Amino acid sequence: MRYKNCRVLVTGGLGFIGSNLALQLAAEGAEVTVVDPCVPGCGGDPANIPASSGIQVVYANIGQVQRLRDHIMNADVIFNIAGEISHIQSMLNPERDLDLNTRDHLRFLEACREWRPGVRVVYASTRQVFGVPEYLPVDEQHPVNPVDYNGVHKYAASQYHLMLSRKGGLDAIVLRLTNVYGPRMSFTAMNQGFLSVFLKRMAEGLPLAVYGDGEQLRDPLYVSDCVSAFLHAGLMESSVRAFNVGGGEVLSLRQIAAISAGVAGLPEPKRVPFPAERQAIDIGSYYTDSTLFRATTGWAPQVSLEQGMREALAYYVRHRAVAGAAR
Amino acid sequence: MRYKNCRVLVTGGLGFIGSNLALQLAAEGAEVTVVDPCVPGCGGDPANIPASSGIQVVYANIGQVQRLRDHIMNADVIFNIAGEISHIQSMLNPERDLDLNTRDHLRFLEACREWRPGVRVVYASTRQVFGVPEYLPVDEQHPVNPVDYNGVHKYAASQYHLMLSRKGGLDAIVLRLTNVYGPRMSFTAMNQGFLSVFLKRMAEGLPLAVYGDGEQLRDPLYVSDCVSAFLHAGLMESSVRAFNVGGGEVLSLRQIAAISAGVAGLPEPKRVPFPAERQAIDIGSYYTDSTLFRATTGWAPQVSLEQGMREALAYYVRHRAVAGAAR
Repeated sequence: MRYKNCRVLVTGGLGFIGSNLALQLAAEGAEVTVVDPCVPGCGGDPANIPASSGIQVVYANIGQVQRLRDHIMNADVIFNIAGEISHIQSMLNPERDLDLNTRDHLRFLEACREWRPGVRVVYASTRQVFGVPEYLPVDEQHPVNPVDYNGVHKYAASQYHLMLSRKGGLDAIVLRLTNVYGPRMSFTAMNQGFLSVFLKRMAEGLPLAVYGDGEQLRDPLYVSDCVSAFLHAGLMESSVRAFNVGGGEVLSLRQIAAISAGVAGLPEPKRVPFPAERQAIDIGSYYTDSTLFRATTGWAPQVSLEQGMREALAYYVRHRAVAGAAR
Repeated sequence: MRYKNCRVLVTGGLGFIGSNLALQLAAEGAEVTVVDPCVPGCGGDPANIPASSGIQVVYANIGQVQRLRDHIMNADVIFNIAGEISHIQSMLNPERDLDLNTRDHLRFLEACREWRPGVRVVYASTRQVFGVPEYLPVDEQHPVNPVDYNGVHKYAASQYHLMLSRKGGLDAIVLRLTNVYGPRMSFTAMNQGFLSVFLKRMAEGLPLAVYGDGEQLRDPLYVSDCVSAFLHAGLMESSVRAFNVGGGEVLSLRQIAAISAGVAGLPEPKRVPFPAERQAIDIGSYYTDSTLFRATTGWAPQVSLEQGMREALAYYVRHRAVAGAAR
């Protein structure tokens, strides 16, 4: 398999996307080390990586580079997924967000280019950097207009990756991800958006609600498809370095809620007024043009929302992990 | 006059552009306060603001917001020009650049939106955020591809201004400036680019040199035209908030050197090989499309390179300020 015996480092590897990626890499025979400080609010949870996986876990912040020196020097591929993920939190404590999403990445990438020059680094960026779409679907040429500090800081970190790659210090790929959902998603409501709220309520058997008219469009990406995108990005050859990656279906929030409720056997979702703090960071409809990434790598999303929600719900029921994941 | 009795705050007001702007504002009858920490390398020099100007000087970093509280609360317009200006320095000490160009601005702007919500802030951004031009002249739609940390960090700060304005916390305008030159420019070679090197050598009667073939194009902007752009931006009505601002002449470095040498009575400039550390951050030809700013404000550059270099040289000769400005 592609990653067999490959030494990979996954930052943020106890979090939602990072842990799913690390487990898949281990399943493909890679030697996987994950780095995660389990900072409250960032979604990291030791339960996401079972000891039986054979994955080495380093409890460190990516800015603590001396502790990561050997792991960086030995890495064939680095998946850089660490970061604060809460948009609301970033507006309440913007300097914390700057530290976690920008400064720590500066330190980490300076260490990578010094100790492992030219290494492939795949960075998990976000659609949030684009802000309110000026056109749909959103491609790589779309202007950057973040609506919160999180978007500004994540964008700066993506620019570190690209700038250092232009100088030859790194060989980075930036994936700007749409809404990702699935097993190991944090259930802390402020963190991972409406899909984690839906999943938590589905697991608890509680009815779903949609803010406003629910006509905003999204293209949810199931986490196994997201993981597949990272695996492609880790080995791809490309002179282009920044790609938008979204799901295969464009659905309204109302449709997403209805499909999710159907999967969980819940009643028809209600509409409720938009809470002010969410309205303030809502971006209306958003969906992604993944044409460039598909054409460059052959990647394509495989999992429908109904299938993905079914698998995710089964995971939470099977693991009875609701209470644990809510930390 | 437009700024008579207007209370203005100029950050970085002991530096090159800031001091020229502050003096012009004072001449127009504004009540001017400048804030500057005189951080080594940022170009601030107390000699740039004579006591006779009536300008109040606060020796503080813009991140020290408690010291600036009254000044922020009382400001009608804020010109935010503070920052580390050295591109080379930003690659040697990127965290310092992050602090000066990003974190301090975060603190300052959070204070502005809390204590003086909706205030007009005009931010001095740089053409450097665009990196190597993909097309010429460079307009506001050009992709952002900074070639160094300075560009990444300055761009993040510009995004703070724009993001907070979209939320109604500020009423900011961002000017992305081309190469500015003129009186009060720092003569520290690492700081302000080839035009400061030329001016210093002209003032010292030393011959000029051009790196490489000297065919790279630039559109130098004389500082009085730059100041005029800030004055327009401080009072303009516009839904667009980010503008590129460049000079009125497009000239090769060789032409610029020849005109400068002529003004100073120096021999024909020599060509010398590109030093490696400068080659690494060279962006080739660059010139600006200022059409949007001109059309929106009526501003236009007035000063030719020959006239600007003549005035700048006369300033340095008149003030015999070479030694002082070289700090």
